[in-house]
Amino acid sequence: MGALRTAVIGLAFLVVSGAVTYGQARSNAEDSLRAADQAWLKVYAAKDLERTVAFFDEQGSVLPANQRAATGKKAVTELMREEFTLQDYKLTWTPTWVGVAASGDLGYTGGSYDFSCKDASGKTITDKGKYLTVWKKQADGSWKVLLDMSNSDLPAPA
Amino acid sequence: MGALRTAVIGLAFLVVSGAVTYGQARSNAEDSLRAADQAWLKVYAAKDLERTVAFFDEQGSVLPANQRAATGKKAVTELMREEFTLQDYKLTWTPTWVGVAASGDLGYTGGSYDFSCKDASGKTITDKGKYLTVWKKQADGSWKVLLDMSNSDLPAPA
Repeated sequence: MGALRTAVIGLAFLVVSGAVTYGQARSNAEDSLRAADQAWLKVYAAKDLERTVAFFDEQGSVLPANQRAATGKKAVTELMREEFTLQDYKLTWTPTWVGVAASGDLGYTGGSYDFSCKDASGKTITDKGKYLTVWKKQADGSWKVLLDMSNSDLPAPA
Repeated sequence: MGALRTAVIGLAFLVVSGAVTYGQARSNAEDSLRAADQAWLKVYAAKDLERTVAFFDEQGSVLPANQRAATGKKAVTELMREEFTLQDYKLTWTPTWVGVAASGDLGYTGGSYDFSCKDASGKTITDKGKYLTVWKKQADGSWKVLLDMSNSDLPAPA
């Protein structure tokens, strides 16, 4: 019985420590994805076109509200260049949801954004809403954006 | 040299067949997710509230355009019930992007939708746009919706 008890305790230890290790790996993966989400915000909010586009996978897409989707670096660059012409551009976002697959190759971040800019007449326009981003781990270990979508919380104008 | 050649050929066979098996598993996983996306459309387009909500993970969220996000079965049910009161409700969607993690526990579908309904005055309203859905494989092997977002391709009213 002593040997059996030892075996059972040993097995329980393996199961628990395995679960802890797995949970830790998952948590580390989520931390790395959250860091990518916030590193992207930093260059995006700074209207740094080259670095913003560099966060996209080669086949990445932007799915913007009230416009057609843009797929691939060239189309994404054109869309972002247009967005970055907005005056007094202020953008921030905060992830509410962060998840990574067990295999660590696919993940998502999503949450809320706050945005403001000035229109051609100098009037401040504000918006707040939600975003959802699907990320793919690259061969070099970095996270890149496969799909990025957002929409407003504000009622549509009548 | 004969043995080496045999070993090299054998190794190449293992690598190729391993890649084929992996590719096949990935493709099967994507097929199962595409099938879930289309099975969901079927009950959604039929305004079957119970079956539509049953596709959500317990912590699933809808991120609708021009409204706040709804998280959890209760809030999702209320949102969907409201949507299904629309008259002459016609909805279809087609996935353009389908992807599943190597571990098979997380995936996404996204693509285009077409929608129409009648407003209170009986006037037909049409919309077309994009959707993005993040899915989580459940313990029973079914896919459930973690996050579901959409936005319009049409310009916002001025």
